[in-house]
Amino acid sequence: MTGSLVIAGLGPGAGSLVTPEVTDALAQATDVVGYIPYVARVAARPGLTLHPSDNRVEIDRSRHALELASAGRHVVVVSSGDPGVFAMASAVFEALEAGPAAWRDLDIRVLPGITAMLAAAARAGAPLGHDFCAINLSDNLKPWSLIEKRLRLAAEADFAMAFYNPRSKSRPEGFTKTLQILQESCGDARPVIFARAVSTPDETIRVVPLTECTPDMANMRTVVLVGSSTTRIIARAGAPFVYTPRSVDT
Amino acid sequence: MTGSLVIAGLGPGAGSLVTPEVTDALAQATDVVGYIPYVARVAARPGLTLHPSDNRVEIDRSRHALELASAGRHVVVVSSGDPGVFAMASAVFEALEAGPAAWRDLDIRVLPGITAMLAAAARAGAPLGHDFCAINLSDNLKPWSLIEKRLRLAAEADFAMAFYNPRSKSRPEGFTKTLQILQESCGDARPVIFARAVSTPDETIRVVPLTECTPDMANMRTVVLVGSSTTRIIARAGAPFVYTPRSVDT
Repeated sequence: MTGSLVIAGLGPGAGSLVTPEVTDALAQATDVVGYIPYVARVAARPGLTLHPSDNRVEIDRSRHALELASAGRHVVVVSSGDPGVFAMASAVFEALEAGPAAWRDLDIRVLPGITAMLAAAARAGAPLGHDFCAINLSDNLKPWSLIEKRLRLAAEADFAMAFYNPRSKSRPEGFTKTLQILQESCGDARPVIFARAVSTPDETIRVVPLTECTPDMANMRTVVLVGSSTTRIIARAGAPFVYTPRSVDT
Repeated sequence: MTGSLVIAGLGPGAGSLVTPEVTDALAQATDVVGYIPYVARVAARPGLTLHPSDNRVEIDRSRHALELASAGRHVVVVSSGDPGVFAMASAVFEALEAGPAAWRDLDIRVLPGITAMLAAAARAGAPLGHDFCAINLSDNLKPWSLIEKRLRLAAEADFAMAFYNPRSKSRPEGFTKTLQILQESCGDARPVIFARAVSTPDETIRVVPLTECTPDMANMRTVVLVGSSTTRIIARAGAPFVYTPRSVDT
Protein backbone atom coordinates (compact mmCIF):
# COMPACT_ATOMS: atom_id res chain seq x y z
CA MET A 1 0.00 0.00 0.00
CA THR A 2 1.37 3.41 -0.97
CA GLY A 3 0.96 6.09 1.62
CA SER A 4 0.83 9.84 1.27
CA LEU A 5 1.57 12.92 3.29
CA VAL A 6 -0.32 16.19 2.92
CA ILE A 7 0.68 19.30 4.87
CA ALA A 8 -2.48 21.38 4.99
CA GLY A 9 -3.35 24.90 6.11
CA LEU A 10 -6.63 25.24 8.04
CA GLY A 11 -6.69 29.04 7.80
CA PRO A 12 -6.97 31.34 10.81
CA GLY A 13 -10.00 29.76 12.47
CA ALA A 14 -13.32 30.03 10.66
CA GLY A 15 -14.55 27.04 8.69
CA SER A 16 -15.54 29.39 5.87
CA LEU A 17 -11.84 30.10 5.31
CA VAL A 18 -10.83 26.45 4.80
CA THR A 19 -10.28 25.72 1.10
CA PRO A 20 -12.22 22.88 -0.55
CA GLU A 21 -8.86 21.30 -1.40
CA VAL A 22 -8.02 20.98 2.30
CA THR A 23 -11.53 19.77 3.16
CA ASP A 24 -11.17 17.03 0.53
CA ALA A 25 -7.73 16.01 1.82
CA LEU A 26 -9.12 15.67 5.34
CA ALA A 27 -12.03 13.57 4.02
CA GLN A 28 -9.56 11.12 2.47
CA ALA A 29 -7.12 10.97 5.40
CA THR A 30 -6.57 7.94 7.60
CA ASP A 31 -4.47 9.97 10.08
CA VAL A 32 -4.36 13.60 11.13
CA VAL A 33 -1.26 14.84 12.92
CA GLY A 34 -0.74 18.26 14.53
CA TYR A 35 -0.68 20.59 17.48
CA ILE A 36 -3.59 19.90 19.87
CA PRO A 37 -5.81 22.93 19.10
CA TYR A 38 -5.47 22.45 15.33
CA VAL A 39 -6.28 18.72 15.42
CA ALA A 40 -9.30 19.68 17.54
CA ARG A 41 -10.65 21.54 14.50
CA VAL A 42 -10.91 18.25 12.54
CA ALA A 43 -14.15 16.29 13.03
CA ALA A 44 -13.71 12.71 14.26
CA ARG A 45 -15.09 9.95 12.02
CA PRO A 46 -14.74 6.16 11.69
CA GLY A 47 -11.50 5.27 9.92
CA LEU A 48 -9.72 8.45 10.95
CA THR A 49 -7.10 8.43 13.71
CA LEU A 50 -6.30 11.78 15.30
CA HIS A 51 -2.76 12.32 16.64
CA PRO A 52 -2.71 15.57 18.64
CA SER A 53 0.64 16.60 20.10
CA ASP A 54 1.97 19.43 22.23
CA ASN A 55 3.68 22.60 21.06
CA ARG A 56 7.45 22.73 20.39
CA VAL A 57 7.72 19.10 19.25
CA GLU A 58 7.50 19.94 15.56
CA ILE A 59 10.35 17.70 14.43
CA ASP A 60 9.13 14.66 16.41
CA ARG A 61 5.65 15.23 15.03
CA SER A 62 7.03 15.49 11.49
CA ARG A 63 8.99 12.24 11.83
CA HIS A 64 5.90 10.52 13.16
CA ALA A 65 3.86 11.74 10.17
CA LEU A 66 6.57 10.57 7.72
CA GLU A 67 6.72 7.16 9.43
CA LEU A 68 2.96 6.76 9.18
CA ALA A 69 3.02 7.67 5.48
CA SER A 70 5.89 5.22 4.94
CA ALA A 71 3.74 2.52 6.50
CA GLY A 72 1.06 3.18 3.88
CA ARG A 73 -1.21 5.58 5.76
CA HIS A 74 -2.78 8.70 4.23
CA VAL A 75 -1.60 11.36 6.60
CA VAL A 76 -2.59 15.02 6.84
CA VAL A 77 -0.39 17.27 8.98
CA VAL A 78 -2.55 20.25 9.96
CA SER A 79 -1.30 23.79 10.55
CA SER A 80 -3.27 26.89 11.27
CA GLY A 81 -3.06 29.58 8.60
CA ASP A 82 -0.79 28.62 5.72
CA PRO A 83 1.54 25.68 6.43
CA GLY A 84 4.43 27.42 4.66
CA VAL A 85 4.36 30.61 6.76
CA PHE A 86 5.96 30.05 10.17
CA ALA A 87 4.17 26.72 10.46
CA MET A 88 4.60 22.97 9.88
CA ALA A 89 5.82 22.68 6.29
CA SER A 90 9.43 23.67 7.00
CA ALA A 91 9.55 21.29 9.98
CA VAL A 92 8.38 18.38 7.82
CA PHE A 93 11.03 19.14 5.18
CA GLU A 94 13.71 19.42 7.87
CA ALA A 95 12.71 15.96 9.12
CA LEU A 96 12.54 14.65 5.55
CA GLU A 97 16.02 15.88 4.70
CA ALA A 98 17.51 14.35 7.87
CA GLY A 99 15.62 11.06 7.56
CA PRO A 100 15.93 7.81 5.55
CA ALA A 101 16.43 8.28 1.80
CA ALA A 102 13.26 6.24 1.11
CA TRP A 103 11.14 9.03 2.61
CA ARG A 104 12.01 11.19 -0.41
CA ASP A 105 9.99 8.89 -2.66
CA LEU A 106 6.81 9.46 -0.67
CA ASP A 107 3.85 11.29 -2.22
CA ILE A 108 4.14 14.61 -0.34
CA ARG A 109 2.05 17.71 -1.06
CA VAL A 110 1.64 21.08 0.62
CA LEU A 111 -1.83 22.67 0.47
CA PRO A 112 -1.88 26.44 1.03
CA GLY A 113 -4.22 28.18 3.45
CA ILE A 114 -5.29 31.69 4.43
CA THR A 115 -2.40 32.91 6.56
CA ALA A 116 -3.11 35.09 9.61
CA MET A 117 -1.57 38.29 8.25
CA LEU A 118 -3.80 38.27 5.18
CA ALA A 119 -6.95 37.52 7.18
CA ALA A 120 -6.02 40.34 9.56
CA ALA A 121 -5.23 42.72 6.70
CA ALA A 122 -8.62 42.00 5.10
CA ARG A 123 -10.40 42.86 8.35
CA ALA A 124 -8.62 46.21 8.58
CA GLY A 125 -8.83 47.20 4.90
CA ALA A 126 -5.69 46.76 2.81
CA PRO A 127 -2.66 47.67 4.96
CA LEU A 128 -0.44 45.21 3.01
CA GLY A 129 -1.53 46.62 -0.35
CA HIS A 130 2.00 47.65 -1.27
CA ASP A 131 5.42 45.99 -0.73
CA PHE A 132 5.66 44.31 2.67
CA CYS A 133 7.59 41.81 4.78
CA ALA A 134 6.68 39.09 7.26
CA ILE A 135 8.85 38.51 10.32
CA ASN A 136 8.51 35.90 13.06
CA LEU A 137 9.42 37.77 16.27
CA SER A 138 10.06 34.59 18.24
CA ASP A 139 13.73 34.21 19.08
CA ASN A 140 13.40 30.53 19.95
CA LEU A 141 15.03 29.55 16.66
CA LYS A 142 17.10 32.58 15.68
CA PRO A 143 19.22 35.14 17.51
CA TRP A 144 17.59 38.40 18.59
CA SER A 145 20.35 40.32 16.80
CA LEU A 146 19.04 39.01 13.45
CA ILE A 147 15.48 40.08 14.28
CA GLU A 148 16.73 43.54 15.19
CA LYS A 149 18.75 43.81 11.97
CA ARG A 150 15.73 42.81 9.90
CA LEU A 151 13.47 45.32 11.67
CA ARG A 152 15.88 48.18 11.00
CA LEU A 153 16.36 47.23 7.35
CA ALA A 154 12.60 46.74 6.84
CA ALA A 155 11.98 50.23 8.22
CA GLU A 156 14.68 51.65 5.97
CA ALA A 157 13.10 49.89 2.97
CA ASP A 158 9.74 51.39 3.99
CA PHE A 159 8.02 48.01 3.86
CA ALA A 160 4.69 47.51 5.56
CA MET A 161 5.36 44.73 8.08
CA ALA A 162 3.54 41.74 9.52
CA PHE A 163 4.74 40.17 12.76
CA TYR A 164 3.94 36.62 13.82
CA ASN A 165 4.41 35.40 17.40
CA PRO A 166 5.01 38.91 18.73
CA ARG A 167 4.95 38.12 22.42
CA SER A 168 4.97 35.21 24.83
CA LYS A 169 5.08 35.01 28.62
CA SER A 170 8.60 33.59 28.46
CA ARG A 171 9.94 36.39 26.23
CA PRO A 172 7.99 39.57 26.95
CA GLU A 173 10.99 41.81 26.28
CA GLY A 174 11.28 41.04 22.54
CA PHE A 175 8.15 42.93 21.57
CA THR A 176 9.08 45.82 23.87
CA LYS A 177 12.36 46.15 21.98
CA THR A 178 10.56 45.78 18.64
CA LEU A 179 8.32 48.74 19.39
CA GLN A 180 11.29 50.82 20.54
CA ILE A 181 13.18 50.07 17.32
CA LEU A 182 10.19 50.94 15.14
CA GLN A 183 9.32 54.12 17.05
CA GLU A 184 12.94 55.22 16.64
CA SER A 185 13.41 54.09 13.01
CA CYS A 186 10.06 55.19 11.60
CA GLY A 187 9.70 58.43 13.55
CA ASP A 188 6.01 58.89 12.81
CA ALA A 189 2.52 57.93 13.95
CA ARG A 190 1.77 55.43 11.17
CA PRO A 191 -1.06 53.01 11.96
CA VAL A 192 -0.37 49.69 13.67
CA ILE A 193 -3.02 46.96 13.69
CA PHE A 194 -3.27 44.48 16.54
CA ALA A 195 -5.40 41.62 15.22
CA ARG A 196 -6.17 38.92 17.76
CA ALA A 197 -7.78 35.56 16.98
CA VAL A 198 -9.02 36.69 13.57
CA SER A 199 -12.15 34.93 12.28
CA THR A 200 -12.84 33.27 15.65
CA PRO A 201 -15.45 34.32 18.26
CA ASP A 202 -12.60 35.96 20.23
CA GLU A 203 -11.58 38.26 17.38
CA THR A 204 -10.48 41.80 18.26
CA ILE A 205 -9.00 44.35 15.86
CA ARG A 206 -7.39 47.48 17.23
CA VAL A 207 -5.76 50.29 15.24
CA VAL A 208 -3.21 52.35 17.19
CA PRO A 209 -0.72 55.04 16.08
CA LEU A 210 2.85 53.71 16.31
CA THR A 211 3.72 56.43 18.79
CA GLU A 212 1.06 55.13 21.21
CA CYS A 213 1.71 51.38 20.93
CA THR A 214 2.58 49.49 24.12
CA PRO A 215 3.81 45.91 24.46
CA ASP A 216 0.73 44.67 26.32
CA MET A 217 -1.38 45.24 23.19
CA ALA A 218 -0.11 41.92 21.73
CA ASN A 219 -0.05 38.34 22.90
CA MET A 220 0.74 35.04 21.14
CA ARG A 221 -2.68 35.00 19.45
CA THR A 222 -2.05 38.42 17.90
CA VAL A 223 -0.74 39.23 14.47
CA VAL A 224 0.66 42.75 14.33
CA LEU A 225 0.61 44.75 11.08
CA VAL A 226 2.62 47.95 10.77
CA GLY A 227 1.94 50.37 7.94
CA SER A 228 4.57 51.89 5.70
CA SER A 229 5.15 55.66 5.60
CA THR A 230 2.38 55.94 2.98
CA THR A 231 -0.32 53.95 4.81
CA ARG A 232 -3.55 55.88 5.27
CA ILE A 233 -6.56 55.80 7.58
CA ILE A 234 -10.12 56.40 6.36
CA ALA A 235 -12.14 57.58 9.33
CA ARG A 236 -15.86 56.78 9.46
CA ALA A 237 -18.63 56.03 11.92
CA GLY A 238 -17.46 52.45 12.58
CA ALA A 239 -13.93 51.06 12.75
CA PRO A 240 -11.63 52.96 10.37
CA PHE A 241 -10.24 51.42 7.21
CA VAL A 242 -6.45 51.23 6.98
CA TYR A 243 -4.87 50.87 3.57
CA THR A 244 -1.58 51.32 1.78
CA PRO A 245 -1.97 52.95 -1.64
CA ARG A 246 -0.59 51.22 -4.72
CA SER A 247 1.32 54.31 -5.80
CA VAL A 248 4.43 55.95 -4.43
CA ASP A 249 5.17 59.38 -5.82
CA THR A 250 8.56 59.90 -7.35
CA MET B 1 -32.50 49.24 -0.10
CA THR B 2 -29.07 49.05 1.54
CA GLY B 3 -26.31 47.94 -0.73
CA SER B 4 -23.01 46.27 0.04
CA LEU B 5 -19.54 45.94 -1.41
CA VAL B 6 -17.36 42.86 -1.00
CA ILE B 7 -13.80 42.77 -2.33
CA ALA B 8 -13.08 39.08 -2.78
CA GLY B 9 -10.02 37.00 -3.60
CA LEU B 10 -10.57 34.15 -6.04
CA GLY B 11 -7.21 32.53 -5.35
CA PRO B 12 -4.66 31.73 -8.06
CA GLY B 13 -6.93 29.82 -10.43
CA ALA B 14 -8.26 26.46 -9.27
CA GLY B 15 -11.82 26.30 -7.96
CA SER B 16 -10.57 24.09 -5.11
CA LEU B 17 -8.64 27.11 -3.77
CA VAL B 18 -11.67 29.44 -3.53
CA THR B 19 -12.80 29.77 0.09
CA PRO B 20 -16.43 28.94 0.99
CA GLU B 21 -16.76 32.54 2.26
CA VAL B 22 -16.04 33.87 -1.23
CA THR B 23 -18.30 31.28 -2.89
CA ASP B 24 -21.15 32.39 -0.59
CA ALA B 25 -20.54 36.08 -1.33
CA LEU B 26 -20.71 35.39 -5.07
CA ALA B 27 -23.95 33.43 -4.59
CA GLN B 28 -25.54 36.47 -2.92
CA ALA B 29 -24.21 39.10 -5.34
CA THR B 30 -26.32 41.09 -7.76
CA ASP B 31 -23.23 42.49 -9.53
CA VAL B 32 -19.70 41.25 -10.09
CA VAL B 33 -17.07 43.79 -11.10
CA GLY B 34 -13.48 43.10 -12.13
CA TYR B 35 -10.78 42.56 -14.70
CA ILE B 36 -12.06 40.50 -17.66
CA PRO B 37 -10.29 37.16 -16.96
CA TYR B 38 -11.31 37.20 -13.27
CA VAL B 39 -14.98 38.00 -13.98
CA ALA B 40 -14.85 35.12 -16.50
CA ARG B 41 -14.25 32.77 -13.56
CA VAL B 42 -17.68 33.61 -12.10
CA ALA B 43 -20.60 31.53 -13.45
CA ALA B 44 -23.46 33.52 -14.99
CA ARG B 45 -26.89 33.07 -13.42
CA PRO B 46 -30.25 34.90 -13.49
CA GLY B 47 -30.19 37.98 -11.29
CA LEU B 48 -26.44 38.45 -11.55
CA THR B 49 -24.95 41.16 -13.75
CA LEU B 50 -21.31 40.76 -14.74
CA HIS B 51 -19.23 43.90 -15.29
CA PRO B 52 -15.90 42.89 -16.84
CA SER B 53 -13.42 45.69 -17.53
CA ASP B 54 -9.96 46.01 -18.98
CA ASN B 55 -6.65 46.14 -17.14
CA ARG B 56 -5.25 49.44 -15.77
CA VAL B 57 -8.65 51.00 -15.07
CA GLU B 58 -8.67 50.02 -11.41
CA ILE B 59 -9.83 53.37 -10.05
CA ASP B 60 -12.68 53.73 -12.59
CA ARG B 61 -13.72 50.17 -11.81
CA SER B 62 -13.63 50.89 -8.07
CA ARG B 63 -15.77 54.00 -8.44
CA HIS B 64 -18.26 52.05 -10.52
CA ALA B 65 -18.48 49.36 -7.84
CA LEU B 66 -18.98 51.98 -5.10
CA GLU B 67 -21.70 53.70 -7.14
CA LEU B 68 -23.53 50.41 -7.66
CA ALA B 69 -23.37 49.64 -3.92
CA SER B 70 -24.61 53.18 -3.16
CA ALA B 71 -27.58 52.49 -5.41
CA GLY B 72 -28.48 49.46 -3.28
CA ARG B 73 -26.80 46.67 -5.24
CA HIS B 74 -24.86 43.81 -3.66
CA VAL B 75 -21.54 44.09 -5.41
CA VAL B 76 -18.55 41.78 -5.39
CA VAL B 77 -15.28 43.12 -6.78
CA VAL B 78 -13.21 40.09 -7.76
CA SER B 79 -9.43 39.86 -7.67
CA SER B 80 -7.22 36.92 -8.37
CA GLY B 81 -5.21 35.69 -5.40
CA ASP B 82 -5.76 37.79 -2.29
CA PRO B 83 -7.41 41.19 -2.92
CA GLY B 84 -5.07 42.88 -0.42
CA VAL B 85 -1.81 41.80 -2.10
CA PHE B 86 -1.10 43.89 -5.21
CA ALA B 87 -4.74 43.64 -6.22
CA MET B 88 -8.07 45.47 -6.04
CA ALA B 89 -8.54 46.25 -2.33
CA SER B 90 -6.15 49.23 -2.25
CA ALA B 91 -7.71 50.66 -5.42
CA VAL B 92 -11.19 50.50 -3.88
CA PHE B 93 -9.99 52.27 -0.73
CA GLU B 94 -8.24 54.93 -2.81
CA ALA B 95 -11.52 55.57 -4.65
CA LEU B 96 -13.45 55.50 -1.36
CA GLU B 97 -11.18 58.06 0.27
CA ALA B 98 -11.42 60.42 -2.72
CA GLY B 99 -15.16 59.97 -3.19
CA PRO B 100 -18.36 61.32 -1.56
CA ALA B 101 -18.45 61.12 2.25
CA ALA B 102 -21.61 58.99 2.07
CA TRP B 103 -19.60 56.11 0.56
CA ARG B 104 -17.88 55.67 3.94
CA ASP B 105 -21.15 54.48 5.48
CA LEU B 106 -21.46 51.61 3.02
CA ASP B 107 -21.19 48.00 4.20
CA ILE B 108 -17.73 47.15 2.82
CA ARG B 109 -15.85 43.92 3.50
CA VAL B 110 -12.62 42.40 2.21
CA LEU B 111 -12.51 38.58 1.90
CA PRO B 112 -9.02 37.12 1.81
CA GLY B 113 -7.86 34.58 -0.77
CA ILE B 114 -4.90 32.32 -1.49
CA THR B 115 -2.31 34.70 -2.88
CA ALA B 116 -0.04 33.56 -5.71
CA MET B 117 3.20 33.52 -3.71
CA LEU B 118 1.77 31.10 -1.13
CA ALA B 119 0.27 28.81 -3.77
CA ALA B 120 3.63 28.82 -5.56
CA ALA B 121 5.55 28.23 -2.34
CA ALA B 122 3.32 25.25 -1.50
CA ARG B 123 4.03 23.66 -4.89
CA ALA B 124 7.79 23.97 -4.37
CA GLY B 125 7.92 22.93 -0.71
CA ALA B 126 8.31 25.70 1.86
CA PRO B 127 10.68 28.35 0.44
CA LEU B 128 8.93 31.12 2.45
CA GLY B 129 9.18 29.14 5.70
CA HIS B 130 11.25 31.84 7.37
CA ASP B 131 11.15 35.67 7.29
CA PHE B 132 10.34 36.98 3.81
CA CYS B 133 9.19 39.98 1.80
CA ALA B 134 6.85 40.55 -1.13
CA ILE B 135 7.70 43.14 -3.78
CA ASN B 136 5.73 44.24 -6.84
CA LEU B 137 8.35 44.66 -9.57
CA SER B 138 6.08 46.78 -11.76
CA ASP B 139 7.28 50.37 -11.93
CA ASN B 140 3.97 51.66 -13.29
CA LEU B 141 3.08 53.13 -9.90
CA LYS B 142 6.43 53.68 -8.18
CA PRO B 143 9.88 54.79 -9.26
CA TRP B 144 12.41 52.12 -10.21
CA SER B 145 14.88 53.64 -7.71
CA LEU B 146 12.57 52.56 -4.85
CA ILE B 147 12.36 49.01 -6.19
CA GLU B 148 16.15 48.86 -6.43
CA LYS B 149 16.57 50.19 -2.89
CA ARG B 150 14.13 47.59 -1.54
CA LEU B 151 15.88 44.76 -3.39
CA ARG B 152 19.27 45.71 -1.94
CA LEU B 153 17.90 46.08 1.60
CA ALA B 154 15.94 42.81 1.33
CA ALA B 155 19.12 41.01 0.28
CA GLU B 156 21.02 42.61 3.17
CA ALA B 157 18.25 41.53 5.58
CA ASP B 158 18.54 38.00 4.14
CA PHE B 159 14.82 37.77 3.53
CA ALA B 160 13.41 35.17 1.20
CA MET B 161 11.62 37.18 -1.48
CA ALA B 162 8.49 36.92 -3.58
CA PHE B 163 8.12 39.03 -6.71
CA TYR B 164 4.80 39.87 -8.33
CA ASN B 165 4.52 41.24 -11.89
CA PRO B 166 8.17 40.53 -12.63
CA ARG B 167 8.12 41.24 -16.33
CA SER B 168 5.96 42.74 -19.04
CA LYS B 169 6.53 43.35 -22.73
CA SER B 170 6.53 47.10 -22.11
CA ARG B 171 9.16 46.94 -19.34
CA PRO B 172 11.43 43.97 -20.02
CA GLU B 173 14.49 45.70 -18.54
CA GLY B 174 13.23 45.81 -14.92
CA PHE B 175 13.56 42.10 -14.32
CA THR B 176 16.95 42.06 -16.05
CA LYS B 177 18.15 44.67 -13.56
CA THR B 178 16.51 42.79 -10.67
CA LEU B 179 18.47 39.64 -11.45
CA GLN B 180 21.71 41.65 -11.76
CA ILE B 181 21.14 43.27 -8.36
CA LEU B 182 20.38 39.95 -6.70
CA GLN B 183 23.28 38.11 -8.32
CA GLU B 184 25.57 40.89 -7.11
CA SER B 185 24.05 41.34 -3.63
CA CYS B 186 23.52 37.69 -2.73
CA GLY B 187 26.69 36.30 -4.32
CA ASP B 188 25.58 32.67 -4.19
CA ALA B 189 23.61 30.03 -6.08
CA ARG B 190 20.53 30.03 -3.83
CA PRO B 191 17.43 28.51 -5.43
CA VAL B 192 15.00 30.68 -7.38
CA ILE B 193 11.54 29.36 -8.22
CA PHE B 194 9.71 30.50 -11.35
CA ALA B 195 6.08 29.56 -10.82
CA ARG B 196 3.81 30.25 -13.75
CA ALA B 197 -0.01 30.04 -13.71
CA VAL B 198 -0.07 28.03 -10.47
CA SER B 199 -3.08 25.77 -10.02
CA THR B 200 -4.21 26.19 -13.64
CA PRO B 201 -3.76 23.73 -16.55
CA ASP B 202 -0.83 25.90 -17.73
CA GLU B 203 1.11 25.56 -14.47
CA THR B 204 4.88 25.24 -14.69
CA ILE B 205 7.33 25.27 -11.76
CA ARG B 206 11.03 25.63 -12.42
CA VAL B 207 13.82 25.73 -9.83
CA VAL B 208 17.00 27.46 -11.01
CA PRO B 209 20.17 28.51 -9.14
CA LEU B 210 20.34 32.31 -8.85
CA THR B 211 23.62 32.30 -10.78
CA GLU B 212 21.88 30.71 -13.78
CA CYS B 213 18.68 32.78 -13.86
CA THR B 214 17.89 34.73 -17.03
CA PRO B 215 15.15 37.33 -17.59
CA ASP B 216 13.23 35.24 -20.13
CA MET B 217 12.36 32.72 -17.40
CA ALA B 218 9.57 35.03 -16.14
CA ASN B 219 6.54 36.66 -17.71
CA MET B 220 3.52 38.49 -16.24
CA ARG B 221 1.88 35.21 -15.25
CA THR B 222 4.93 34.21 -13.20
CA VAL B 223 5.52 34.65 -9.50
CA VAL B 224 9.22 34.49 -8.69
CA LEU B 225 10.40 33.24 -5.28
CA VAL B 226 14.02 33.74 -4.22
CA GLY B 227 15.42 31.80 -1.28
CA SER B 228 17.36 33.30 1.60
CA SER B 229 20.98 32.32 2.26
CA THR B 230 19.72 29.35 4.32
CA THR B 231 17.23 27.92 1.79
CA ARG B 232 17.86 24.25 0.98
CA ILE B 233 17.08 21.84 -1.83
CA ILE B 234 16.04 18.25 -1.24
CA ALA B 235 16.90 16.28 -4.36
CA ARG B 236 14.79 13.27 -5.27
CA ALA B 237 13.55 11.34 -8.30
CA GLY B 238 10.86 13.93 -9.19
CA ALA B 239 10.95 17.70 -8.84
CA PRO B 240 13.11 18.73 -5.87
CA PHE B 241 11.66 20.22 -2.70
CA VAL B 242 12.86 23.71 -1.81
CA TYR B 243 12.50 24.86 1.80
CA THR B 244 13.80 27.46 4.19
CA PRO B 245 14.50 26.04 7.65
CA ARG B 246 12.88 27.59 10.70
CA SER B 247 16.21 27.98 12.49
CA VAL B 248 19.11 30.31 11.89
CA ASP B 249 22.27 29.44 13.81
CA THR B 250 23.70 32.09 16.07
